[in-house]
Amino acid sequence: MALNERTLIERFFRDCGAPRADVPLGVGDDAALLESPPGLQLVAAMDTLVCGNHFLPHFPADSIGHRALAVNLSDLAAMGAEPAWALLALTLPQADEAWLEGFAAGLDAIARQHNVALVGGDTTRGPLCVTVQLLGHAPRPPVMLRSGGRAGDVLFVSGTPGDAAAGLAVELKQLGATNAEAGAWLRERFMFPTPRVALGKRLRAHASACIDVSDGLLGDAGRMAEASGCGVVIAHEHLPVAPQLLDCAGEERARELTLTGGEAYELCFAVAPENVERLTRDLPPAEWGYTRIGELVTAQGAVVTRNGTVMDFSHSGWDHFAS
Amino acid sequence: MALNERTLIERFFRDCGAPRADVPLGVGDDAALLESPPGLQLVAAMDTLVCGNHFLPHFPADSIGHRALAVNLSDLAAMGAEPAWALLALTLPQADEAWLEGFAAGLDAIARQHNVALVGGDTTRGPLCVTVQLLGHAPRPPVMLRSGGRAGDVLFVSGTPGDAAAGLAVELKQLGATNAEAGAWLRERFMFPTPRVALGKRLRAHASACIDVSDGLLGDAGRMAEASGCGVVIAHEHLPVAPQLLDCAGEERARELTLTGGEAYELCFAVAPENVERLTRDLPPAEWGYTRIGELVTAQGAVVTRNGTVMDFSHSGWDHFAS
Repeated sequence: MALNERTLIERFFRDCGAPRADVPLGVGDDAALLESPPGLQLVAAMDTLVCGNHFLPHFPADSIGHRALAVNLSDLAAMGAEPAWALLALTLPQADEAWLEGFAAGLDAIARQHNVALVGGDTTRGPLCVTVQLLGHAPRPPVMLRSGGRAGDVLFVSGTPGDAAAGLAVELKQLGATNAEAGAWLRERFMFPTPRVALGKRLRAHASACIDVSDGLLGDAGRMAEASGCGVVIAHEHLPVAPQLLDCAGEERARELTLTGGEAYELCFAVAPENVERLTRDLPPAEWGYTRIGELVTAQGAVVTRNGTVMDFSHSGWDHFAS
Repeated sequence: MALNERTLIERFFRDCGAPRADVPLGVGDDAALLESPPGLQLVAAMDTLVCGNHFLPHFPADSIGHRALAVNLSDLAAMGAEPAWALLALTLPQADEAWLEGFAAGLDAIARQHNVALVGGDTTRGPLCVTVQLLGHAPRPPVMLRSGGRAGDVLFVSGTPGDAAAGLAVELKQLGATNAEAGAWLRERFMFPTPRVALGKRLRAHASACIDVSDGLLGDAGRMAEASGCGVVIAHEHLPVAPQLLDCAGEERARELTLTGGEAYELCFAVAPENVERLTRDLPPAEWGYTRIGELVTAQGAVVTRNGTVMDFSHSGWDHFAS
């Protein structure tokens, strides 16, 4: 059965995501009407997933729906913002009902989990491509920006940032999962990443700077340091590595993936030395899942040390337009 | 020269559009920070242009940049909203500097014309596709929705909605422009449509319902009527037709294009009979460029009459997923 655009929207997207009282008019008119809460800043992010680049055609449709919102939730998490409303631009080669069912289910589940309403968007015909625009709110300054760090700040990262890249490698059979259970776990970490929204909101009270790790920890930490007018040193031996990753990739490759693997959607953040004790008291690392990995320094650049000696890395992250 | 993602954004998009004081943080961090004015509703639209569907690869890049924002401005115009901030998701097969220069110039010009700041977005590699998300503001109710019309309301349309479809046909050599000047004018109307933002804002005081004409006047008027729980009758002999369109297409084809041609980005609106005199006094039709074309009626459906007799039409607009 062929679906027309209107039936497609009615069937899969009208009731997608959480219902919210601050949406006087959602999907269905020329534009959505939204009630901004007084006294807060509006926070806006937009990210695209392209078939053949960010995912492959055979990847589960619910994973694509999940990730399309997750990558934006991660951007808002890095600003310490509370997500609220999403718009979806979905370009499809054809209206495949089974695929749409899965995609909408994946999007719906993570949207409800974060109380995000789908309020509008566009569906078009063309090569498979998904853009989500996410709006949220944050209190006024002090804001947690990339540029707020200072030399001497302690550097932390949430979760275990090598998992997603390893999971993708497992999916693509580029990494042999000797342990099938560990391999499946890593694959799940790529397909259904967990944006650190709750952590991001709590970090506003502690962090001087924050960035979401989407292009590789070393590259993104370097970007944050540069925006802060300083450099960064990361201790190789302090990198957080999941046992499943160690199991599948071995120690060296696991740490390399942790430094350079993309699609992690963890938070990398800097905390002034005098605030570290308060941070770890208010947000116990074992409970909130983050690790001290280095510090911001005066000398420009992003450097990795192993037991005090500087290591050499050629790959500092993904760049969609590098030649 | 290959451009990386960051250089591309710095060079073409950091200063694109109008500067606005209500953007504490624009392009460059994980998300943008925006200051919503108190007492107004936020209005959000998002539209995609796909290469091969909404434009062809050889179309001028500045036209694509212009249209990517114009289609969203038209959505906000239909809500009577004031545009403010845009986000751009640009998917490119390669970073072609000449193309990017043209695209950014087209986007910049129309953004500045409407005081819209480009505050964020995403650039990715893949098949050429442009999504713009536009945010603006509108006073609280009474809002001008699709659903506010009533049987008896008088129907109007802005501009001459057949021009753009004819211009596309000229560009594709499907319509022979016997008069080269008229053909060029029509082509320009397709490549650089004029969203009716100022008219939309003024219509809030007069119109009961409004829709932006993007998929064909008859189909979109029918959608507005249906949302309003009624039908619509359009008088064939009252359709506004530009002399250039008459010149190139002849009377019959010109009126058919006016009824069914897509990509017009005009406003179709309904006004209660008792408000028509005030409308035409406050917004003189000759000055504001709109025409009375019919009325909303009790009987469902969209009907065209010629001198009082019902005409038969098979094509009621574009549907991106119709089989």
